[in-house]
Amino acid sequence: MATLIAPEHADHFADAEALHKACQGWGTDEKGIIEVIGHRNSAQRKLIKETYEQQYSEKLGHRFEKELSGDFERAVYRWMLEPYEREAVLANVALKKSDYQVIIELSCTPSAEELLAFKRAYQARYLHSLEEDVASHFTGDLRKLLLLLVSVYRYESEATNATLAEAEAEILHKCIKDKEYHHDEIIRILTTRSKAQLVATFYRFRDAYGTPIAKSIVGDKDQDYVSALHTAIRCIKSPQKYLERVLSDAMHKRGTDEDAITRVIVTRAEKDLAKIKELFYKRNSETLEHAVAKETRGDYEKFLLTIMGAEHH
Amino acid sequence: MATLIAPEHADHFADAEALHKACQGWGTDEKGIIEVIGHRNSAQRKLIKETYEQQYSEKLGHRFEKELSGDFERAVYRWMLEPYEREAVLANVALKKSDYQVIIELSCTPSAEELLAFKRAYQARYLHSLEEDVASHFTGDLRKLLLLLVSVYRYESEATNATLAEAEAEILHKCIKDKEYHHDEIIRILTTRSKAQLVATFYRFRDAYGTPIAKSIVGDKDQDYVSALHTAIRCIKSPQKYLERVLSDAMHKRGTDEDAITRVIVTRAEKDLAKIKELFYKRNSETLEHAVAKETRGDYEKFLLTIMGAEHH
Repeated sequence: MATLIAPEHADHFADAEALHKACQGWGTDEKGIIEVIGHRNSAQRKLIKETYEQQYSEKLGHRFEKELSGDFERAVYRWMLEPYEREAVLANVALKKSDYQVIIELSCTPSAEELLAFKRAYQARYLHSLEEDVASHFTGDLRKLLLLLVSVYRYESEATNATLAEAEAEILHKCIKDKEYHHDEIIRILTTRSKAQLVATFYRFRDAYGTPIAKSIVGDKDQDYVSALHTAIRCIKSPQKYLERVLSDAMHKRGTDEDAITRVIVTRAEKDLAKIKELFYKRNSETLEHAVAKETRGDYEKFLLTIMGAEHH
Repeated sequence: MATLIAPEHADHFADAEALHKACQGWGTDEKGIIEVIGHRNSAQRKLIKETYEQQYSEKLGHRFEKELSGDFERAVYRWMLEPYEREAVLANVALKKSDYQVIIELSCTPSAEELLAFKRAYQARYLHSLEEDVASHFTGDLRKLLLLLVSVYRYESEATNATLAEAEAEILHKCIKDKEYHHDEIIRILTTRSKAQLVATFYRFRDAYGTPIAKSIVGDKDQDYVSALHTAIRCIKSPQKYLERVLSDAMHKRGTDEDAITRVIVTRAEKDLAKIKELFYKRNSETLEHAVAKETRGDYEKFLLTIMGAEHH
């Protein structure tokens, strides 16, 4: 499901040396950098960073900061972080921009254990909790929803309870029919039930009331809150479909959203980007590589395509 | 800080055999049971249970259920559970009685890691999350408060930020002065900030406004919610003082509350009951052992006194 192509064994001494060479002299050898880090998995990259620091008494990250720039630099910076640390950085950047969509993506696409590891990394890096930052960056019902989405330690089983799905689909339908999108019960159900149970509830909703739940929630003066509900529902239903949509929107809307492209590709290249690529092709009749090649340029493009596994473009 | 007196090494084969003997024949030898399990720590008790089941093809817990009764049985049952599993059982019992005080005690007295372990044990035992059970047992603002208290993975550092304490003491004071106890900001601050930070905020509140925060929150039509606020504040401020008060109330109010006595003594005997005993003596000029001996009887009394470390009563 990953797209990254990395050798089983890599020589981190040779890699650190190659990166050191690529960063020396007048121009930076961006291709040389991509050739190494674009073909190393997260454990290998960690070793390279450690080795580089030992050998050359400087942090590889600092060196890259000096040598690289723009979208390429940002993508490489994120790529070189360990996965949970990267999510912590992405969340922190999102909070500064009050980008609740990214907060929902980061809290609803991972498993309970992954979310926990990400929250631990956040605490280690920023010396307070993700929860307190989310709570103090947002207000009102949006805060209620976001705070519980990042806080609750969901049950992970695939088991579902049909009676409960029926009962809660009915509660959700009643709230939605009356346009009470802010009802506590909607927030309670979405934030506390296991994802498998929620998916069962969403199916039940569609079967009983004819429309998928996300499509039933339309129009409200509090557009951010409604949009957050949609995002949460879609992330819970299918993280991969949601992320495919993030990529499509980032590329097909006016003005390419490089941050979103980088975020999804960098966080998923070692995970399930192959599946996301498949979904992208199905919906757009265009390969993701092709779309990325059209919308990005230079070393940034080369780097993204490399970790996407597109060797010969 | 613990009161339990247990040998460093215990022979779990001999212990299992002694318990088997104590449960055989016409009468049960309760003293024999107390002699063993009242002097074994949680790891030793776990081994005894495993050994007993292997040797006698029945669960020790089931055997105790048959042989023992009343408060003694309940205390032994709780004692024989592993700590986090015990908390899961206590939470489940509390939920059935809508006893929000116990839910707050179980979520606010442990560290973030302990709370997490307890939530994992809850999921393993009941096949859903503590969060969803709390959310579906309560409503309104009481639910909002309780759900976040059990959900948030608090930051654990002892470091505090004086500027933040000042700012948030002011926010709390403004809400409390206006009798807006249900204000989102009170819930946000109490549920998301680290405990050390909250204690700093409480001190700042008292210094700036002359009254401790808990004492400032008085009277409201929603008595349960206000009472929950008090409990949360006291558990965060000092778990041991809070638990001392639970014991005092359980013994000195009309009608002894055996469940509360059992809960605090059993959960704390291997932890910090010595400190709680000290606090009890300071406030009541009576030893906790003496009070327990007055309020309880028979094997139940003997068992409690044994794990409290009162050998010669």
